[in-house]
Amino acid sequence: MEIRVAAAQIRPRLGDIEYNRRRMTDFARKAAELEVDLLVFPELANSGYNFPSREFALKCAESLDGETVRIMSALAREYSMYIVFGLCEREGERLFNSAVLVGPEGLIGVYRKVHLFMREKEIFERGREFRVFTTPIARIGLMICFDWLFPEAARTLALRGAEVIAHPANLVLPYCPRAMPIRALENRVYTVTANRVGYERGLRFIGLSLICAPTGDVLAQASSSHEELIYADIDPAVARDKRITEMNDIFKDRVPEAYALR
Amino acid sequence: MEIRVAAAQIRPRLGDIEYNRRRMTDFARKAAELEVDLLVFPELANSGYNFPSREFALKCAESLDGETVRIMSALAREYSMYIVFGLCEREGERLFNSAVLVGPEGLIGVYRKVHLFMREKEIFERGREFRVFTTPIARIGLMICFDWLFPEAARTLALRGAEVIAHPANLVLPYCPRAMPIRALENRVYTVTANRVGYERGLRFIGLSLICAPTGDVLAQASSSHEELIYADIDPAVARDKRITEMNDIFKDRVPEAYALR
Repeated sequence: MEIRVAAAQIRPRLGDIEYNRRRMTDFARKAAELEVDLLVFPELANSGYNFPSREFALKCAESLDGETVRIMSALAREYSMYIVFGLCEREGERLFNSAVLVGPEGLIGVYRKVHLFMREKEIFERGREFRVFTTPIARIGLMICFDWLFPEAARTLALRGAEVIAHPANLVLPYCPRAMPIRALENRVYTVTANRVGYERGLRFIGLSLICAPTGDVLAQASSSHEELIYADIDPAVARDKRITEMNDIFKDRVPEAYALR
Repeated sequence: MEIRVAAAQIRPRLGDIEYNRRRMTDFARKAAELEVDLLVFPELANSGYNFPSREFALKCAESLDGETVRIMSALAREYSMYIVFGLCEREGERLFNSAVLVGPEGLIGVYRKVHLFMREKEIFERGREFRVFTTPIARIGLMICFDWLFPEAARTLALRGAEVIAHPANLVLPYCPRAMPIRALENRVYTVTANRVGYERGLRFIGLSLICAPTGDVLAQASSSHEELIYADIDPAVARDKRITEMNDIFKDRVPEAYALR
């Protein structure tokens, strides 16, 4: 079954949660007009990225029963769509850089970022687990931004059955758009990287959101500077076939006993 | 200490071992004129690649005390050079697709290919271990051709201390030259991919040998069709520094307890 996947490359405003929710709502409606089945927003889409302090981040943070999850779940239900978005998540006094998956059925799951970048280490707790969620449209794995650099992240998701990796990002280093086709290829999965654009307190985000196929082909790519919606039609079943030649299956050919984990 | 590393992109002739040794010798002399410290030849450089049968491969195969290792060791001694080359290796009745490292001190070590491609599975036994060798010029890890697709290969070598990955190849798929900069970047190591050119019984080899830096930069790249020597000057100490930002060390930031190995 073909599905339509999309990345919403937006420009959140730091600390302006009301605005950010409206912008996400606008893009969810645009995606609905395009009959998108899976829509991915950037990392920390509700809050912006470059917090001046942990206290500031704490003020932006929301729990999983908060307003942003509620709004996104309602949109998912209204439009029969699955939505992944970055959330500055609060649980008690702890903060997580999270990716949330909602669908017509409501909240499906959350992934808390494992590989924290730069000053995120001073703000967020580290997540512990890479998670894959089975939905009617696809098995969806979640990773966030800097996770791209660690091949173990996408590999773990693929080994756990992910057909599509939804990848909210706030990229500032230049490398990721070159790496994602390789992540897709080496795992024979689809990837949807939703990056943001704009500037925040000295950081420039590089845009270039992209959707990659199990062949390593780039199916759609955004600009480096503008808000936009990119999309592609994919068949998740293709990602279940791990053959790269008639005699090579990239999973069956793995030799874990030869691999160092530490 | 800066060292000069090189890849000899040659065109071996299938089954013409005398010719292949002469060609390797010619390129070793060229490299010596350029004061190369580490020279890498393609996969199966002594024998060619696309054997019509296992019997044919058996006739081309040599042991580690055979003539090709002897000649390469003598060149390494004469020119104070380290040389990695692909060898169709025989041990008793078993065949391995191997990469051999020799230096002025003689035979240093051998790596037997772990991830066999296509019909190699009908000819060769699979290797069991990724190996890194400490030499006076650098810690050198070995992998061969199709190993590039499995991120665990380069990762294992880097975790075991490789500063330079010598990568003999006989590439026929188009992807590897795009992937090697990512392998170098994600492990912050240097990579030297020595591919071959030419045709053999319906297979076209893609050339495009390349040398990559821990930054993901391509330091040198060969053509897709011609025999040539490419080289670059590198500092292996750079590969010992795993920081990608002032707050991120790509090894210390790994979270093995979150990674699936199987």
